[in-house]
Formats: sequence, structure tokens, C-alpha cells
Amino acid sequence: MTTKANGLTNLGLVQMACEPEPERNLARALESIRSAASGGAQIICLPELFRTQYFCQEENVDQFELAEPIPGPTTEALSRTARDCAVVVVGTVFERRTAGIYHNSAVVIDADGELLGIYRKMHIPDDPLYYEKFYFTPGDLGFRVFETRFGSVAPLICWDQWFPEAARLAALAGAEFLVFPSAIGWHPDEKEQHGKAQAEAWRIAHRAHAISNGAFVAAINRTGHERPLDGSPTRPMGYSGIEFWGRSFACNPLGVIVAEAGDRDEILIACCDRADVERTRRDWPFLRDRRIDSYGGLTRRAAK
Amino acid sequence: MTTKANGLTNLGLVQMACEPEPERNLARALESIRSAASGGAQIICLPELFRTQYFCQEENVDQFELAEPIPGPTTEALSRTARDCAVVVVGTVFERRTAGIYHNSAVVIDADGELLGIYRKMHIPDDPLYYEKFYFTPGDLGFRVFETRFGSVAPLICWDQWFPEAARLAALAGAEFLVFPSAIGWHPDEKEQHGKAQAEAWRIAHRAHAISNGAFVAAINRTGHERPLDGSPTRPMGYSGIEFWGRSFACNPLGVIVAEAGDRDEILIACCDRADVERTRRDWPFLRDRRIDSYGGLTRRAAK
Repeated sequence: MTTKANGLTNLGLVQMACEPEPERNLARALESIRSAASGGAQIICLPELFRTQYFCQEENVDQFELAEPIPGPTTEALSRTARDCAVVVVGTVFERRTAGIYHNSAVVIDADGELLGIYRKMHIPDDPLYYEKFYFTPGDLGFRVFETRFGSVAPLICWDQWFPEAARLAALAGAEFLVFPSAIGWHPDEKEQHGKAQAEAWRIAHRAHAISNGAFVAAINRTGHERPLDGSPTRPMGYSGIEFWGRSFACNPLGVIVAEAGDRDEILIACCDRADVERTRRDWPFLRDRRIDSYGGLTRRAAK
Repeated sequence: MTTKANGLTNLGLVQMACEPEPERNLARALESIRSAASGGAQIICLPELFRTQYFCQEENVDQFELAEPIPGPTTEALSRTARDCAVVVVGTVFERRTAGIYHNSAVVIDADGELLGIYRKMHIPDDPLYYEKFYFTPGDLGFRVFETRFGSVAPLICWDQWFPEAARLAALAGAEFLVFPSAIGWHPDEKEQHGKAQAEAWRIAHRAHAISNGAFVAAINRTGHERPLDGSPTRPMGYSGIEFWGRSFACNPLGVIVAEAGDRDEILIACCDRADVERTRRDWPFLRDRRIDSYGGLTRRAAK
């Protein structure tokens, strides 16, 4: 059995498009986990809400039917595959917690198949075609780290990427790996004008988390062009949907990208030396110098 | 008289090398302010501790002789020039506050010459050849914003750049411009191996501040290769000093670099439309979604 004694961890990033039929996406995800595992990956991450298309492009109560409990069918299938392959799996689930409370939740499953726990997305977007506030109650578990067989993993989810607070709290809690299952893309209508800056800003935000915290960071995105269903009531950006930009990547604690995908489906494997976390933080001792006496204002909305 | 009614502000970045003789550096800085102003700059920023060479390469009590009060000769000279040119000036001073308390302080001087206030560097480094903890008492004024004739300016200083908390607090306090007078460079001994990643990490950290806060960010660095004086007691990285890398730049609230210097002395002028702050924050409403209820842990050293 592989152990974490050697300090090296192979991170596996499954970049995939999602089809309309949930069972097909789940089957494909399980197959990709097996494939990544046979390629040497030890912590394998799936894109945000990989079991479905990105249903948040419209506000439609029928979509709540896609939710399921945790543990539930999806996490059980992920657990079996994690155990079979002896790998850690990070997946996200549209969680039905109770009637009227749904979350966008990540699960971390250890290499023996045990569900170590969940993280419920803390920062919820509401942007044209990303109507997540309609579906997802904001998480109430805070920022969490799970000790897995292959390292300490903090799952964060997509929109969380824009909040340095989230990455910092996860790092302070002991995370070596900050992993961001994501579903981010362009509005085709504005891609030509803003697309390059948007995708570059996304990379920079992630790399900056790695740098300021001295931790590995990975973003795992979906691909494909998904359009809102016919009959969707809300289409302010036109009918052209979202073109998910893929480009999943992993970077080391210096923010150097060590593996990066294109815009098609791909399984990336990034070799990470966990000793780089300690090494980088000795060279760049930012955590030593934080002015915790002066950060109280971070819990305020604004200074005025 | 130029007013801020039109929403456009030209930011001037003075990138310069510093000589051994303080009066020559001050004269050169004043001349550069005049030159930037005649080129249209309205908020003009100087590199960190521009009046002297970077004396923190050694721990030497004699260097405290370089300190001066605020207001004092340097700030008075900056005020006169600011008033003469009708420009805002951000400079930094080795401040003697009282016997035994010295700070690395930024001053913001309005376009009428008024000293609006000071910021005392909050995060103090202590790295080989950057022995700032020996000289500088950590700031006790928090993160500050000054309303100038040409926009709201938060001065932060060099090492502060690695702390997303600093940028966030300045933005929450209302800053449109986060300006970082800096003195950062390579140890020549490690430049070949790490230099590229170090300089890139520096750019990324700054650009991420712009992105996550929807504000303009500028870094103003010195140039030149400075060596510790003979007789310096501490030379753990060898005798080769610091090669300040220049590369001052300004980026917009999307993190896009709008002006960038090379590694020689240069005066950069970046045209900034302050309406971009509001515009960017409407498109990317990160400040709306901060989970202030869950950020209390940021005032702790670590979670364990």
C-alpha cells in the first residue's frame, strides 16, 4: 500500500464535460478516477457538480429533483471506487440536507473508502447564468481540512477562489492542498472582449493563494458549451449559455504551474513534494509575520 | 486646476536606483516628480526608502542616523514639490518617532502640499539581507486610506504585498489605488535558480490584490545592485548584495497590467479610469459575498 511516508503525492485532476444524463456523468467520473489511479494519481479531484450539467443557468424549482443526500448514491459510488483504487477522491454533490435546505457540497473520501467529511460551499455567486443563490444555502461548516492518506486536503468550491480569506483559513487549518472543484466559463457574448482577462484573472487568483499561503493549489474545471434549457425564464445574457473553459491546473507553493490542461477533456497528474510546503514557508515566512492584532476589520462588511 | 471630476487619474511611478548620498537621492526624486508631473502624472509614487540605499542589508546601529522625523526635511521638500506641481506625492521615510522607536513610513501629500497623513509599515520582513525587524518597529496605525485631490490612496509598503489581509482592509476602507513603494530584488547567488519564480510571484500577488478587491494596484520598486558596506557583521548569503529588480507596474481592477517598467530607471505613467473600480465590482461582486460571519479565524495565528 502506498503511504505518505515518502512525502510525494500525485494529484489527479479530472477535467470533463457533463452530459444531460446524470448517470452517464457519474459512470464517466468513476471511470476517470480508475484511469487516473492507474496513471499513479493518489488524490483525485472531480469538477464541481460533475454529475449534472450546470443547472444554475436558470432558476427552476424542478432542478431541486437533482439533489441527493450525503451519504447517498453518488458518495457511495465514489467511496467504492476510492477503496477499490486505494485513492483519495474529492467530489462535489448537489446536497439535499432537508426539505428547503440544499447545498453545493464537496466530499473528501479517504483511500479506504471512508467519507471523511463534507465542505459546504461558503461563497455563493449570483451572476447572469450563475444563479446559485437560488439553489444553494450558504455553507455553515466553515473552511475545513481533512487528513487523508496522501496529505491534508482543503476542498473549496469555484466562487470561493475569489476570496483570499477562504484560502488563508484553510491554510491556517493545516491544508497542504487547496483544491477547487469548479464550473467556470465564458458568456460567449462577451468572450471576445473580456474572455482573456477573465481566464487570466482566474489563474492569478489561484496562484496567489498558493504564494501567500505556501500551499499547493489545484483548480478542476469542466469543459463544454452548455445552454439553458428551453423554457428557462431568465436569460439576460442571451441564449448562448456558458462555454466552460477547462484549463484545470495545479501549482506549487511558489505559484508555479506544474500541470495544466487545455480546453478539452483531460486527466492531469501533478507530482507534488509535500516537503515543498515547509520549505517554501521557511524561505517566505509570511505566516510568521501576519498582523493578527490588526485584522479585526476583516469580519466587517466595509469600514464605513 | 485639475480636479477629480472627470474620473481619470494618471498615476506616476518613479523607478530609480539609489546612491550612497541621501541628498542626491532626494534631489533626484524631486526632479523625477517634476518630470512625471510635466508628463501628466497626478499621483506620483516613489520607491520605498528612496532617500537612502537599502541599509537593511546589515544590522548596524549607525544606520539609525539616517532616520528623521515626520514632518521633517524630506517630507517638507516633498510637500513643496507637490504644491509647486499640483500633484499628489507618496513617499516613504525612515521615520524617527522617538528615541528607540523607528518606523518604515509612507507619507501621502495632497496636491496643495498638505501632509494628509502617514502609514507605518505593518508587516516587517526579516530575511537574509532584509533585516528590517532590527530597524523598524511594526506599524501601529493599521491600514489607512487618504482622500486626495485625484482619488483615494492606500499606501502599503513592500513586504505588505504578501498579505491579502492588508490589501483587503485597505480596499474595505475605500481605497481606489493601492500603492506599494518597494525595495525588492534578487540575491545574485540564487537568481539563476529562483529568480524567475520570485519575480513572477511578486507580480501575481499584486495582480491578485487588484482582482480580489476591484482596485488599481501599483508597485514602485528601486533598481540597481547594492552591496552591504564593508564591515557588515551579517552576510549569510555571501557578499553579493541585492540586485533590485525594478519592473514597477500598475494594473487595473481586473488585474491587467496597464504600464510596466524594465530593470532600469524609468518614469511610468498609467492612465486610470476610477469608474473602473465601480464597474468591475458590479461585474465581479466579490465584496457582496464575503462571509464575514466566518472570518474570525483570520485574527488567529493558526487553527492549532
